[in-house]
Parts: sequence; structure tokens; C-alpha cells
Amino acid sequence: MSTIIATTPASRAFISDNMAGASPEIVQAVADAAAGQVLPYGNDPFTVSARRRLSEIFERDVDVFMVSTGSAANGLSLAALTPPWGSVLAHPDSHIHHDECGAPEFFTAGAKLVGVPGDNSMIDPDALDAAVRRKAGDVHSVQPSAVSISQATELGSVYTVAEIRRLSAIAKDAGLRVHMDGARFANALDHLGTTPAEMTWKAGIDVLSFGATKNGAMTADAIVSFDPELATELGFRAKRAGQLASKMRFHAAQIDAYLTDDLWLHNARRANAMATRLGDGLKAIPDIALLATPQANILFCRLPQHVTEGLLAEGYVFHHDRWEPGTVRFVTSFTHSADDIDQLLDAVRRHTR
Amino acid sequence: MSTIIATTPASRAFISDNMAGASPEIVQAVADAAAGQVLPYGNDPFTVSARRRLSEIFERDVDVFMVSTGSAANGLSLAALTPPWGSVLAHPDSHIHHDECGAPEFFTAGAKLVGVPGDNSMIDPDALDAAVRRKAGDVHSVQPSAVSISQATELGSVYTVAEIRRLSAIAKDAGLRVHMDGARFANALDHLGTTPAEMTWKAGIDVLSFGATKNGAMTADAIVSFDPELATELGFRAKRAGQLASKMRFHAAQIDAYLTDDLWLHNARRANAMATRLGDGLKAIPDIALLATPQANILFCRLPQHVTEGLLAEGYVFHHDRWEPGTVRFVTSFTHSADDIDQLLDAVRRHTR
Amino acid sequence: MSTIIATTPASRAFISDNMAGASPEIVQAVADAAAGQVLPYGNDPFTVSARRRLSEIFERDVDVFMVSTGSAANGLSLAALTPPWGSVLAHPDSHIHHDECGAPEFFTAGAKLVGVPGDNSMIDPDALDAAVRRKAGDVHSVQPSAVSISQATELGSVYTVAEIRRLSAIAKDAGLRVHMDGARFANALDHLGTTPAEMTWKAGIDVLSFGATKNGAMTADAIVSFDPELATELGFRAKRAGQLASKMRFHAAQIDAYLTDDLWLHNARRANAMATRLGDGLKAIPDIALLATPQANILFCRLPQHVTEGLLAEGYVFHHDRWEPGTVRFVTSFTHSADDIDQLLDAVRRHTR
Amino acid sequence: MSTIIATTPASRAFISDNMAGASPEIVQAVADAAAGQVLPYGNDPFTVSARRRLSEIFERDVDVFMVSTGSAANGLSLAALTPPWGSVLAHPDSHIHHDECGAPEFFTAGAKLVGVPGDNSMIDPDALDAAVRRKAGDVHSVQPSAVSISQATELGSVYTVAEIRRLSAIAKDAGLRVHMDGARFANALDHLGTTPAEMTWKAGIDVLSFGATKNGAMTADAIVSFDPELATELGFRAKRAGQLASKMRFHAAQIDAYLTDDLWLHNARRANAMATRLGDGLKAIPDIALLATPQANILFCRLPQHVTEGLLAEGYVFHHDRWEPGTVRFVTSFTHSADDIDQLLDAVRRHTR
Repeated sequence: MSTIIATTPASRAFISDNMAGASPEIVQAVADAAAGQVLPYGNDPFTVSARRRLSEIFERDVDVFMVSTGSAANGLSLAALTPPWGSVLAHPDSHIHHDECGAPEFFTAGAKLVGVPGDNSMIDPDALDAAVRRKAGDVHSVQPSAVSISQATELGSVYTVAEIRRLSAIAKDAGLRVHMDGARFANALDHLGTTPAEMTWKAGIDVLSFGATKNGAMTADAIVSFDPELATELGFRAKRAGQLASKMRFHAAQIDAYLTDDLWLHNARRANAMATRLGDGLKAIPDIALLATPQANILFCRLPQHVTEGLLAEGYVFHHDRWEPGTVRFVTSFTHSADDIDQLLDAVRRHTR
Repeated sequence: MSTIIATTPASRAFISDNMAGASPEIVQAVADAAAGQVLPYGNDPFTVSARRRLSEIFERDVDVFMVSTGSAANGLSLAALTPPWGSVLAHPDSHIHHDECGAPEFFTAGAKLVGVPGDNSMIDPDALDAAVRRKAGDVHSVQPSAVSISQATELGSVYTVAEIRRLSAIAKDAGLRVHMDGARFANALDHLGTTPAEMTWKAGIDVLSFGATKNGAMTADAIVSFDPELATELGFRAKRAGQLASKMRFHAAQIDAYLTDDLWLHNARRANAMATRLGDGLKAIPDIALLATPQANILFCRLPQHVTEGLLAEGYVFHHDRWEPGTVRFVTSFTHSADDIDQLLDAVRRHTR
Repeated sequence: MSTIIATTPASRAFISDNMAGASPEIVQAVADAAAGQVLPYGNDPFTVSARRRLSEIFERDVDVFMVSTGSAANGLSLAALTPPWGSVLAHPDSHIHHDECGAPEFFTAGAKLVGVPGDNSMIDPDALDAAVRRKAGDVHSVQPSAVSISQATELGSVYTVAEIRRLSAIAKDAGLRVHMDGARFANALDHLGTTPAEMTWKAGIDVLSFGATKNGAMTADAIVSFDPELATELGFRAKRAGQLASKMRFHAAQIDAYLTDDLWLHNARRANAMATRLGDGLKAIPDIALLATPQANILFCRLPQHVTEGLLAEGYVFHHDRWEPGTVRFVTSFTHSADDIDQLLDAVRRHTR
Repeated sequence: MSTIIATTPASRAFISDNMAGASPEIVQAVADAAAGQVLPYGNDPFTVSARRRLSEIFERDVDVFMVSTGSAANGLSLAALTPPWGSVLAHPDSHIHHDECGAPEFFTAGAKLVGVPGDNSMIDPDALDAAVRRKAGDVHSVQPSAVSISQATELGSVYTVAEIRRLSAIAKDAGLRVHMDGARFANALDHLGTTPAEMTWKAGIDVLSFGATKNGAMTADAIVSFDPELATELGFRAKRAGQLASKMRFHAAQIDAYLTDDLWLHNARRANAMATRLGDGLKAIPDIALLATPQANILFCRLPQHVTEGLLAEGYVFHHDRWEPGTVRFVTSFTHSADDIDQLLDAVRRHTR
């Protein structure tokens, strides 16, 4: 445990993008925000500015609720979109299913998550089409109420705008609302080269968990709602869930700096490029199989056991024991350099021989 | 609204101690923490250090859960101390009753808050004695399960150690657990001149909401549990409630710096001293009545209407329309100087004439 | 305990109207319903008939959800009228406050009950007027969402139609919904000599807990909703709460028989008349003070201690140790005869001497 | 709809065993119970007797909570066995998964149901073994806390005592509790020819939903707990959920009569025998395939479409459109006679030709 509780050099840190610290611009913004006296609970100029930036970026007025974790963003968003007797349709691999200890069930007062399968951790439209009307109106069954899609997914895959539109259309046609878990929103956006508006509300998204923490912020994510009718409810739910920070300025300063001068896009671009570089390098190494070409900043591959062990012995930190034997995940972040990636590739090559 | 959404000079800011920013030492600690790569979710050296400091300060091993708000700290603590069919006995003036939009009910899955009265926003022991066994064992009634006391209270009063011991003894004797809402823990501690251990577990407290945000931190409070049997449950509850930060280091760095070199005590001492200075000054002004001698950093007094209006016109920000007509609250913080207080006193004197 | 777990003669049974069994007509109806094969879950002719009768009696289409207890009726009704961050305004003496072990909090996912005082266990209109807008729109506070009135109250008092109208108007004017806990609906109706429509939806009631169990049925109460928009939600909530009986016919047969040939009104009239007879008799006895002239079938009075003891020694069963010393409650039911009451009066007189 | 809301002759009623009415003995017991005055809320001789009979039948002291539906029995039982952050392992075909509109999630305050597959709607021991420790101790995941098995299953299959023992042992070894959904407990018991004790607590069951409604009662099922430590909690949970009937005697009288003179076993034997008779007859008809040999009173088979249509045209009522095309379910009950079955077989034969 002593080795775990220690700082890891960026060149060895691939367990998740949340191993990274924070962008200097965000640190500076937080430091700057610390000086003056402002009203609490979001009635401050930092919050106003963060909201305005989000509205600019999304090309429309949006309602914003800044929270301290992505789990809170997801839980509160889903609670606003489904009644307790509703079901949330999501991919079986999704974070809300597996990695939040039942947070969606807690925030929704007991709604049910229902898995809708599909390749590459992406919901299959035909499977969704079959699921959205399942037992609709049958009092014995939970009622399909919302669809939640991860963009990018937990596998690192990215829905195209057309795919999002199609899933949303299926959902909307059956009366369901649509949530996007955008913990890696910027990474997906960079991959697609589209606009935030195109990837969300123009494609039918009602509420977005807008991730910032993994991509350079410290402890701030935001719920971005495109449906003005949800704003009042989200405000009360957030307060009641302990997510209305008294010194909201410190969340807001992070989001504000994150969106200033395209910092968020630069960070995501870097992270994605590093994953691509890693993927390209690995593909060229015999005996190493990518599970998919990385689209965001997550790469899954199969490594021979001795390679994994060799990397671990060198101090590399990454997930290797969660899936089928041999399956390994590397996550890149804005803190990685081309050198870091090349060192990792060298190490893999060395151990492969 | 434009005047509200702006920075206020410290000399005018008396609405709450959460108008203050953050101590420079805490800002620096957060900046320092931003650099390296560490494991997420609290498996990092900052969290280890913060925990160790808390254990040192409380003179025993404690379990620590760092959260983003005091409402979350209170809600999670109470959820660990009462079943859904339990009741939490608290003063009718308490924050959990009035200012958390039902957060305790949310976190506990519907337990009931039951008011126990007493002077100065402090629970009366005799009233508590009558309440702890009320309908115990009666299946038709919620069951008294926990007592929650605010230290300092919402009125700025502070329980003595003997008073805490007495309330805890009454609770424990009837099988109830005891929670302390320590949003202003340091202010109370400074007033009493006692030790954290004496004011908490040695006096019968089971779980403490350890406030830091109001006294110099940014967005970090901590649940400190003195009962090892609650740790597992609190961990799952915190995660499930969206309070397990992936970059926990940033909460931890705040708490760690807060506790380093007695920063927390210095900050509280300053805030308390400013309230005392303000109280002493106001007492000397004819027509101004203190509702109580301030014990922490909150001061309630009665001001003539034209004085209140005069202060507001000068840009002073404080609560004046929440209670009986004429009742006004000033809250001081570590950011106030003696000059700030003297200016306020001058202004009151000027308007009183 | 052995004496408690035994059948008590009606002449001695005054603890509550739920000591009574069931009306023979209801028993017969249940027996008749037991014979054939019908579809489950309320898709049966008995349920259709019960609904039709309720619609006739209320002079309009109503939505009906038959449940097994009054607590379930109240909990489900309130859950349909308030969000989790809402508050339910009710008299501090009300059953939902004191006698349901937090059922409203459970069914509403943590809404808060807020007491609104008034004499005779009845909500005071001025107090309600002050409460309905308290902290409305303030995100730190639960939001007043529904008013719940007991008709008749737990004290046996009965709101006039004008009083109900006034309370409803105050609630509606502030955007709140109105619930009536009609566990003793028929008793109140008999006292007022009005119609069910006048006492409910024409006076602003949105949802009614229509009690039948205490007045001659076995295990069946009904939620009667006057707002068609609530029907879908109530259906899912009832199922999810384990209140959609598979053999719903047996609930329905009880309600149906209860409403046939004015059985419900006859039963209530009898119970009320017996309480009046008892009150008239007691008033004539020196040293006995009625707390109020009984309006329904509940009578509170003060008895000297030796009288209470004398009655208990004779096998009388009634509540005598729940309130101020000397306060005693007698509840009459449709099973009591004038002889039963006269015997009780004789006994009181005997022991008073 | 008019044809649906009508009485069906027993000879045509095969949609579920809850189409049946009630056994005459149970009707008589309810009628007998209606006469006298007893204390409410289960403090009556009928409840005492029902509890005693259950203790006799299970050959040990048991705690009993009589409720109005099987959904309530299941929901309350599971709530006592799992914390909100727990998971309940159950077969994907189970009633708690599909047919209770999220009741388990409601009663448990948001625990998660996790499917464990197996043939014939029965949990596979190896699959269970893999599931019970999945992510145990991982704060990001719900924690396996209870296993729930249906006896008999929704398919009509029955676990042997050895199979129950094996599943329980796997659960217990990993620290999980075990619940049995015995909505058709008597049918399973009859099939196995074993004792209630052997099939439950001696095989590791902690809490049982003891079904009576489907097998001859009206509106009464019981939670039977074999763990004395759960009794207090179950009592409060039941009250709070609106399941503590004031006239509990009417639930108790049903359960008491159900267990008197082996009525419950006779009823189950009849229902099972009729399913066997039907299965034997269908097997002999060309083109008709049983999906499994019926073990309890449920029979699944494949019918040609024209046969299904022919039966429907004759007024037969049964489920035929819920599964794969051609799959049809017949459920027999204690009300069916050999003649009823033979008529159905005749009809199938006629339409098959």
C-alpha cells in the first residue's frame, strides 16, 4: 500500500485521466478567485461568467449546476429525467451501471437501470428501439423514461452526431428523455471535430453531465440542462443532495478557466493525440492486439502476461486485472508528452522480445 | 441583481463567513497539489496526510471522509446514525432543520427531524431527556435514534464541554447516537479554549461534521467518525451520494493545509476576536441592543430601521430581513481586520445619531 | 398480555373504532365475491362497481385506488402531491405526524411534514396563510407543496365546509395542493349533514384518503383522486408500494357493500349518535369535564384517577395514559348500542361517587 | 374490455391462480372473525393463533408479519436483508425483477437487483458463486448482500432441498443473506414432498415471503423471518410502508384457516395435480410441445397459432402474447377440477386437428 500512496511520474501514470493534477491556468484562476468577498451559493461573478461561457459554447441559453463529481452530475441529471418508477436505458458497460455504487438509484429514489446492449460499449439503435416501449403502460413494470449515453464511452469509443441523433429520435419518439454522460465530453468533441451544440441539444440531448475534472480541472463538473423546465427541480435536488457549494466561486473559477482560450479543447486534443500515438505504436509491435482503434483517450489492448508484469515492475500504473485475462487499459491525459508515450512503447517492445 | 453579483470589499461583507475567499496557505497547498500524478479516489499522499493530521489533532485514530459541502457532511453522518424509521433530535433553529432543503431526509431515506427546544439555539437537557424515550418501541412512531448538536450554533452560541457531555449522556443512556454539526467547529473550540478531543469523542460525540470551508478552505469539509464500525457504511454512502471525489487530493490538500501550523485556529481566533470587538463597540452605542454576547463569530443585535438602511446604502451586506423586525446578523471571518470592524462601528454610530 | 390478546365485549371496547369487526353486509359481500373466477389486479366487476359507486356518491368521475390501510392511502396520496423537496403542511396533532412511523416520509422519498397549529386539532387559517409561502423559491428550504387536513380530526372535531373551502383557497392561491385524510370521512359527513362532493372537490380537495375500515369494512380503504392528471402516477406508485392486490375483488367487494344502501352512512350515524349520547351523559355527572362536545365518534374528557381505575378494573378498554394526566379518550363505533353507552355511563357514575 | 371485466367459469380460467376466489374455509373464518371486538394492529387472538400455527408448521419460533400482497412481502423482506448500497442477486426471470414495478428498489431505498442466470428460471450455482463476491469491498460498486430465490419459480420449476442448500451455502459463505419468494410455496412443497422446515431455515433461508393469496386466501401473505434479529426492523418497516393493518385479525384469520386441517396442502395438491394432468394430456397430442414437465401448477407449452385462437374464441383466458410466438402459459389452481382440465384438453385436441 505504501507504493500506491505516492506520486507517480506522468511517464508511468496510465490508470486513468484522473491521476493527472490540474492545468496551471485553472490553478491560477482558483488562486485569483480566493482573494475577494462575494456572495455565497453561486450568486457571484465567477458563476455568472462560467454560465455565460457555457451558454456561448453551446450557442444558446443553458441552465448550469456546478457539482463536485461526475457521479453527482449523473445522479442529479437522471433524477430530473425519470420518476422513481421509471427505468433508465443505458449500455451494460456504462459508468452509471458499474462504477457509482448505485448513485443513480439513490438520486432517483429507486428507478431502475436497464441494460441495452451494443458493440463497442455503444447502445445499438435496434436494441434501443425494442427497449423504449417495453411494457409501456403496464403497471407491473418500471416504465422506460430516459436513455443515458456515454460520450465518449467507457471503452473510449465515440458516437457520431448521426448516431446520437438516431438514438435520441428513437427515445423521443417513445416519449423518453435523453441524458449524456460527458465525463470525457471534450475528448469526444475533439475526435468528432464538431461543435458542442451539434453533439448535444441539436442532436436531442436534454441534459448533459459536462465533465471537466478528468480533463484539467480539480473538483468541478457541471450539469448543463437544455430544457428550461428542469431548472427549478435541478436546483432543489442539487441543494438537497449537498451539491450547492457555499463558496461556489471555486467550482465556477475552474469551469471558467477551463473554457477560456480553448484550454479544454487543447487538453483533450493532447490526450487524444497521445492515445493515438500509443495505438499506432502498439499496432506495430508483434503479439500486441488493440481491441479497437482509440477514438478518445482510452486504449484497450491485449498484452502477453510477461509484458504486463514487466511494465508493472518498472513502475507503470494501469488497470490490468479487471477484464478477460490479458486485457489491459491505458488512459492518456493532457499531462502526457510524446516522450512519455514513446517511453511506454519502448518498454512494451523491450518486454515483448 | 447586478450589485449583488459582484465582489464586495471585506470591510463591507458581513452576510456570512462564506463570503470570504480562502487562506493563502490553502491556495498554495492546492496549487502545489496540482502538479503530480497520484492515484484517484483518496489513494493519494495528500489524503493520507490529512487523515494523519486529523488523527493527531483528535488524539486518536479517526475515520475521515472528505466531502464538498457541510450539507453532505451532515446528511451522510446522520444517515449512518439513524435508520429510515428513526428520528433525529435537533434544535428547531438548527441548520439541518432550516437550511438544507431536506438533505437529512434525502440522505437518511426519510428519517424525521424532531425539534428539541432550548434557549440560545441550544438544546435544553431536560427537554432532551423527555424526547429521547418518546414512544420508544411504539411501532406507530418514528424512533429516537440520534441527537444532532451544532457547535457553534446558528445563533453563535457555544456549548461548554460539560453541556455536551450532559447531552451525550442523556442520548447514550437511551441508546441514541450523537452527531455534532461543526460547520464552525474551530470558532467554538477557540471560544472554549479546550481540545478537539475534549469537545468531541471524549464528550460522547460519535460522528462530527468538521467544517473547514467557512474558516479559510474553499470547498472541503470532512466527516470525522469516532466509531470504527461506521467506516464501511460511510464509505459506501459517500460514494453513492457523489461525494467520493476522483481527484480527492484537492479536498485533502485543503484540509491538510488548514490543519498545518494551526492555521485553522488562527483563522478562528481572528474571526471570533472581530465579533467580540464588534460586540463591545455596539454595546457602547445607545439604542443598539445585542441579543447575546457573541461567543463565536456570529453577532445578533437589534438596529433601528434607519441605521440598517444607512448601512445598506453604504454598501454593507448583511442579513436583516429574516427575523423579527429590527433583528440584524453580522458574521465575521478570518478576512476581517480591526479596521474593518472599527469602520462598521463608526458607520453605525454615524447613522444612530 | 393475556387479557389484551382476547375478545372484548362491545360494551367494554372504547379504545378505537378499529376494535370493531365488520358489518354483516360487508362480510356477506366478501363471501359472495369469493366464488367465481375473475381477472386479477382490479380488472374485475367488483372493482368496476366500487368505482362506479364512488363516482356516483361524489357526483363526478373519480379515480380510485383501493389499498389495505389508511397509512398507505395517506402516504401514496401525499407522494402524488409533493416532490421530495416539498413540505406537507398539517396540524401537529395529525395522524400522519404522529401515528404512521414516518410513512409519509417513506412514500414521498423524504418530503418534510411541517406543523401548522390551530385549536381543536384543526389548522388555523391565519397560521396556514403564513405557512404556505414560507421560503417559497428559496433553494435552501423545503418548499410548501401540499396541505393535509384530517376530516374528522384526531380529536373528533369536524371542519365545516366553509372552513375547508377557506383552507383550500389559501393553499390553492399559493400553488399548493390539498389532501384530506378521511379515515373518519363518514363520521364527519354525518355530523355536517352535507354531501361528499361539497365536503371534498367542491371545497378544493385534490385527493382524498377515503376510510372504510374504521366504519365497518375489514381491510379496505380507498384513495379517491379528483385530479385526473394524478391517476397514472398513483397507479404506478400503488403497485410499487405493494398495494395493487392481485385479488383486488376482495377490497372492492368491501367498498362496494360499504356504499350500498347507505350502509356507510348508517354506521357513521350510529357511531356519532353513541358519542353524543355518551357526551350528554358525562356532562351531567359532577367532576367529569368534556374537553369538547363530540362532533364525530371520538370523545375526550377528564376523569378522576379512581374513576379510570374503576373502569379498567371492570374490563373497560380505552386510552388513558397518552395525554395530560386525567385525560381519557372514548371512541364509539357502529357496533355500540345505546345500552352499551348507558352501561358505561352507569359505571362512571358509580365510580364517581 | 367489457368481456374482460367479467366473471369467467373456472373451466376457462387459466391466466393465473389469482383468478380463483377463496376457499370456503377461509371465507368462513373471515366471517367468524368479523363478530367481536379485539385490539387492533395485531394484538388479537387471531394473530396469535396464526403465528402459533406458522411456528408449528416450521417447527420453531418464527417472526410473522402479515401483509396484503406478495410484492409487499418481498419488498419488506429484501429491505431487511440488504442496505441501500447492496445488491440482491436473483434470476433474471424472477417476479421481483419483472413484475413489481420496482417495488424492491422502493422498499430498499435504491438497492440494485442483479441477475444471476440459470436454466428453467433457476439460479445456477456456479453463476451464483461467481456473483457473490463480485467487487466485494470495492467502494465503486454495489455490494452483493442477499440472494433471492423463487420457490416455485415463475416458470413453474421447483428447487430441490439440496439445490436450496447449495445456493444458501454459497451465499452464506460469502456473507450474503437468503430470501425465498414463496408466492407458490405450498405448490413447491407439495411437489417435493418435504417439510416447510427442510425447505427453508434448515436449508439456509433467512426470510420467507409465505404466499397464501394465490392458493386459497383472499388478500393475505406473510413474511416469515427465521432470524430473530430482524424482527424489530421488520416491524417498523411494515408499519412505515402501510402494511400494519388496524384490523389485522382479518389477515390473520385467513392465514389461520389456510393452515388449519392442511387446507393449504390440499389446495396446492389439487392445483399441482391439475397441472400434471394437463401436461400429461398435452404431451399426448401431436404438434404440442411442453417447454418443461410441470413441477408445480404452471405449465408452459407451444401451441400452433390456430389452436391458441380457437381456445380464445371459446372463452379461454390465458397468457399467450408475452413470450416467443407460440409460447402459452396455463396456470391451474385449487378451483380446477379434473373435468375442467379434460375439457381444455378436448378443446386443444379439437383445434389441433
